Amino acid sequence: MANKIYERIDVNVPNHQYPLVICNKGLENADFLNRHVESSQVMIVTNTRVGPLYLELLKNSLADKQCDVVVLPDGEEHKNQNTLNTVYDALIEKHHHRDTTLIALGGGVVGDIAGYAASTYQRGVALIQIPTTLLAQIDASVGGKTAINHPLGKNLIGTFYQPKAVLIDISTLPTLPLREFRAGLAEMIKYALLTGGEFLARVESALQSDLNHESADLPYLIGQCCRIKAEIVAGDEKETGSRALLNLGHTFGHALEAQTHYEHWLHGEAVAIGLYCAAILSWKMGLTKYQLVAQVKELLELAGLPYAIPHTIDLKQLIQLMKLDKKIKNNRLRFVVIKQPGECELNDHITEECLHDTLIAAVKGE
Amino acid sequence: MANKIYERIDVNVPNHQYPLVICNKGLENADFLNRHVESSQVMIVTNTRVGPLYLELLKNSLADKQCDVVVLPDGEEHKNQNTLNTVYDALIEKHHHRDTTLIALGGGVVGDIAGYAASTYQRGVALIQIPTTLLAQIDASVGGKTAINHPLGKNLIGTFYQPKAVLIDISTLPTLPLREFRAGLAEMIKYALLTGGEFLARVESALQSDLNHESADLPYLIGQCCRIKAEIVAGDEKETGSRALLNLGHTFGHALEAQTHYEHWLHGEAVAIGLYCAAILSWKMGLTKYQLVAQVKELLELAGLPYAIPHTIDLKQLIQLMKLDKKIKNNRLRFVVIKQPGECELNDHITEECLHDTLIAAVKGE
Repeated sequence: MANKIYERIDVNVPNHQYPLVICNKGLENADFLNRHVESSQVMIVTNTRVGPLYLELLKNSLADKQCDVVVLPDGEEHKNQNTLNTVYDALIEKHHHRDTTLIALGGGVVGDIAGYAASTYQRGVALIQIPTTLLAQIDASVGGKTAINHPLGKNLIGTFYQPKAVLIDISTLPTLPLREFRAGLAEMIKYALLTGGEFLARVESALQSDLNHESADLPYLIGQCCRIKAEIVAGDEKETGSRALLNLGHTFGHALEAQTHYEHWLHGEAVAIGLYCAAILSWKMGLTKYQLVAQVKELLELAGLPYAIPHTIDLKQLIQLMKLDKKIKNNRLRFVVIKQPGECELNDHITEECLHDTLIAAVKGE
Repeated sequence: MANKIYERIDVNVPNHQYPLVICNKGLENADFLNRHVESSQVMIVTNTRVGPLYLELLKNSLADKQCDVVVLPDGEEHKNQNTLNTVYDALIEKHHHRDTTLIALGGGVVGDIAGYAASTYQRGVALIQIPTTLLAQIDASVGGKTAINHPLGKNLIGTFYQPKAVLIDISTLPTLPLREFRAGLAEMIKYALLTGGEFLARVESALQSDLNHESADLPYLIGQCCRIKAEIVAGDEKETGSRALLNLGHTFGHALEAQTHYEHWLHGEAVAIGLYCAAILSWKMGLTKYQLVAQVKELLELAGLPYAIPHTIDLKQLIQLMKLDKKIKNNRLRFVVIKQPGECELNDHITEECLHDTLIAAVKGE
């Protein structure tokens, strides 16, 4: 497929507006890239998996600039201070000034680290996100959250920092392993549940038709997820209110990831189980009918995602981990519940007993 | 002297307003403090020198909160990642949530580290600055700059992050060593040169009357410095324009500090020499008369501050260090010059030869 721009979304946050562009073969289009990269210095941050695939294309397109590269090890376990330091060191050794641009070329981990580095190097330099996984394209690259992990917890150190541009090149998806593509679908299902209506119908129908990286629907679906997230973030950049809805399924998901030391599931897979748990919780609390649980389960199954909590998980320990979640306010358990697709809300009237019942049901895969 | 509030200045930056209060014995006034500390959790960040002096007073005033403390080693050489990690560790170990407040109790180093920690812990928590040195009171605590040093350069890692409040308690000044008090006066002289007019006259007259921590003029002078800085910062939070004027004397000062490994001078002392250099540079460039050089020298002498560059400094190396300054744009040397008090501007038409002449004159103490 030739060079193409599908859609340009203007993301608005207080005092800052930036474009999110969904395109095909944008990485190899120098004109397109240089419209967004204004500086004469560029530091590309990528990893050992994505670098060999797309780095040369990108460097060729930026050939008229001082273009340096730092290649990070691949994987969430490297999203830490040591890896961050390699980015700082590269920036300093190559004499990058305040007017440089960091380009994050990779998935969520690369985006989080590069974003954090951009927000803190010399008190903030320009950042361009080029997400190459479906999950990063529809979720991680929008909203300005950056982070590294601390030995005692995930994403405990981070900033809110908006990029100059997000460039989503869907021609990077064919090299994404199927398991990771599916993990991205979990976030897409989350957006479908948050908004309901036509978008949910489109996602449902696409999943029934075996949604994959070649589906004609994909640019539309990616764009719609970004649009939904951008709208929520625009209203609540620092997550003091409605932005918390984006955590649907995530309190469960984060605890599941933590308990299995981030080794068992991809983030999207843990979120998939979390979405199922959120549906069961909403049902157990009498906020919705069982039909919703069945619907969420079906969507996840269609996407080839897990939904049940494995028998091996210690539920008491899982609850303890949820209490450590940083979204906790005044030590109360706080979850996003689903009254019906398109009608989700924060709820902090959840008893530990109800939570326990929910988890037991989620183990059974009811 | 009893409990007193001298002045309250409202600092405005885009999307954020906060009070800066100049007071006497505010630390021991629980009502006053609790008006500014809204959270139920508080983490006081202080150091081994200031802690023993004021920590108990502050803790007593916050007795109805979960009040934890982290005591940092004293000194610029500890403004690094390791020290920062002790703040993160304390926050995590004591289960501080997103709605906690960090209180920086100390000088510029404590404020910079606590500020950076507040801006990055859980993507940003509340920060209250209680500066206890003159330099931090009139300069470091206003403007939202936070930072740690990198092994390869000062303040290379940092953020712009505004506090909820700055509480300047002048009753902390009697314990400040005279040398540090004087170092603070260097920044005061900088503000006087930036604004000229009546404020310069007041500073000059106060210095002639041996300005010290007991001077009746002090609250007014501190307030005026904060007001000047707050006005400049309000117009240019991220230092894209006029805020750079605050760097008057600092390009020289930073290079002098770097060359002597931050061991020879206090920051304010290096800035004092930097102000003298800036005056000579402006004169050598034909932008001002020699009279200005003499005036700056006299102000610095009255304040008991150094002004000449010692003979032992390698001037060629000093110029190299200035070229590494992060305020450099497009590899051009860039300094704040003084046309006359109250009329300073950025200038990037400075030849290396003129700079060298300036430094030679500054060594001679002309």
